[in-house]
Amino acid sequence: MTEAVSRPTLEAVAALAGVSRATVSRVVNGGDGVREPLAERVRQAVAELGYVPNRAARSLVTRRHDAVAVVIAEPEARVFADPFFALQLRGISKELTAHDNQLVLLLTEGRDDHARVARYLAGGHVDGALVFSLHLDDPLPGLIHDAGVPTVFGGRPDWGDDPRAGRSAGVVYVDCDNRGGARAAVRHLVDLGRRRIAHLTGALDQTSAVDRLDGYREVMADVPGGADARLVVESDFTPAGGERAMRTLLDRCPDVDAVFAANDLTALGALRVLRESGRRVPEDVAVIGFDDMLPVTEQTEPPLTTVRQDIEEMGRLMARLLLHGLPGGRDRVALRADTPPDGGVILPTTLIRRASA
Amino acid sequence: MTEAVSRPTLEAVAALAGVSRATVSRVVNGGDGVREPLAERVRQAVAELGYVPNRAARSLVTRRHDAVAVVIAEPEARVFADPFFALQLRGISKELTAHDNQLVLLLTEGRDDHARVARYLAGGHVDGALVFSLHLDDPLPGLIHDAGVPTVFGGRPDWGDDPRAGRSAGVVYVDCDNRGGARAAVRHLVDLGRRRIAHLTGALDQTSAVDRLDGYREVMADVPGGADARLVVESDFTPAGGERAMRTLLDRCPDVDAVFAANDLTALGALRVLRESGRRVPEDVAVIGFDDMLPVTEQTEPPLTTVRQDIEEMGRLMARLLLHGLPGGRDRVALRADTPPDGGVILPTTLIRRASA
Repeated sequence: MTEAVSRPTLEAVAALAGVSRATVSRVVNGGDGVREPLAERVRQAVAELGYVPNRAARSLVTRRHDAVAVVIAEPEARVFADPFFALQLRGISKELTAHDNQLVLLLTEGRDDHARVARYLAGGHVDGALVFSLHLDDPLPGLIHDAGVPTVFGGRPDWGDDPRAGRSAGVVYVDCDNRGGARAAVRHLVDLGRRRIAHLTGALDQTSAVDRLDGYREVMADVPGGADARLVVESDFTPAGGERAMRTLLDRCPDVDAVFAANDLTALGALRVLRESGRRVPEDVAVIGFDDMLPVTEQTEPPLTTVRQDIEEMGRLMARLLLHGLPGGRDRVALRADTPPDGGVILPTTLIRRASA
Repeated sequence: MTEAVSRPTLEAVAALAGVSRATVSRVVNGGDGVREPLAERVRQAVAELGYVPNRAARSLVTRRHDAVAVVIAEPEARVFADPFFALQLRGISKELTAHDNQLVLLLTEGRDDHARVARYLAGGHVDGALVFSLHLDDPLPGLIHDAGVPTVFGGRPDWGDDPRAGRSAGVVYVDCDNRGGARAAVRHLVDLGRRRIAHLTGALDQTSAVDRLDGYREVMADVPGGADARLVVESDFTPAGGERAMRTLLDRCPDVDAVFAANDLTALGALRVLRESGRRVPEDVAVIGFDDMLPVTEQTEPPLTTVRQDIEEMGRLMARLLLHGLPGGRDRVALRADTPPDGGVILPTTLIRRASA
């Protein structure tokens, strides 16, 4: 019984109050459903013994940690190299801090570590998870689903024909209007009189890249000669990938007069190669990006026309949706009247005209 | 007893095996100290009831989560803006992943959130913490100490006259030879024949900045006129701070012929202002930085002479020291023979000569 002396246990409180452990637990953790005379007896026993509930043990019962995990399904080095993630984390961090929740960023070296991430999520260390940058065939969503952790996804997940596809009902995610934004960009190029309009895609195992490609194709279907498959070059959302894709494109289609890049980083690489090749932007080749990654888009030579999405706001909204959906969250975190609390939220995009197109 | 049917409890196993809960717990968690006949009885009861230990409950007992927190005592936005942290995290991430430990990065908006960080650390979610970028008077080290979490610090902590200074015995940290590196930089400038050698300091509430200033002063004490206080301008380790400090310096000492900047980012700002002011580097003013933040230091105009510290290795070593110090860690994580397992480890620095000095 030395333990009870040095640190009074729940059992000791229960014994002194003459109630069950469950009753003590409910009272200590502020839960309902205990009649007042009983609750009072428990409180007296707690006071008498100087019982201090163990934090970790308590969170096992309340199941609340006031902590939210963020999982970015990219290697750690990529997370710190791409300003997109920094912006999204900025929104998430502000929103979680405003609600006194701890942001727990789980970093990995790659997909092999995703099982360990899922284990941590299942281990009772966080109340929920914000997951973004999913790639097709990543086991992470299935693992998270099995772990039973409330989750909001950044970007529309694509469950494909996963046997557990039933879970896609009620999946909560925030995305921007990738397809509509792409359509607006390509239409703008058409309106400028361009006809040989190319697309450097994002990583096509991500829905954002697929949706932007679809938007490009929808507009190009009405452009004479627009269905030319050589005008589409696969890339990967990075500046180096943009350079490679632009070189391939110039080899294939030296008559190209416009480029819609899947994001601003890809456009950066394309601008570099166009400059090297002696082509003027926008006179010879007009260029449009996607994201509006400030201040980069204002500092390119020439400043970049792009499709703006509010990345920080996406992060904020993901955090709000998650907190709102947790037990008791409705009372703590309000959503705008037009935000559906479950299912997908699609934020609008805006074409920002600068000098490159 | 419905609970026992739907999910067998530890108590049910104990009752069936005829042993105490503590014995079941020890066996289930692979602990020692249970005689074999007893252990066998527990295993049979576990099998018979289909008992599955709750992960969170189990980690309460084993006190092992295979997860390590990283706390950077800077606002989230700063963490993503300064490549120093990305490099240190790279080393930490590789090392933790190699030992199948989850990297848990706890982000904050500022010092007001440090109590919440300490609460998370104390809550039984990680095995230990790696803490860096401490500033004087930050309550974090005290809070972490009170939380009883094994910790390795990045950079020598300065407990000053904190009433809990007793804890400084046995504090484990990794740092580089800030003072020696600074001395080497300033000596090199003296050897080049420079006499009006200025120092743009780092944030002087951090020991790294204080140590680099001390190194500068030690060498300048032997330079005629070197004790001129106007040659030292306080700054803050950022490019914008470096610009401000360089402007102040040019106002005060237009005859300056060399600048030792407290880090590369500060040197970046100084180079910009020197260019604006029409001064040639290194002909009119020689410039040396600190860190060797590649690829930035190779891409400055002119390429930057700097004091190299191996930032990624510092991160790796912090992680190894922490894992080594955890219960059972000695068997899993080896240290080099010359690495003291507790106390401070000081890594060497090297002067890297490029064109700026």
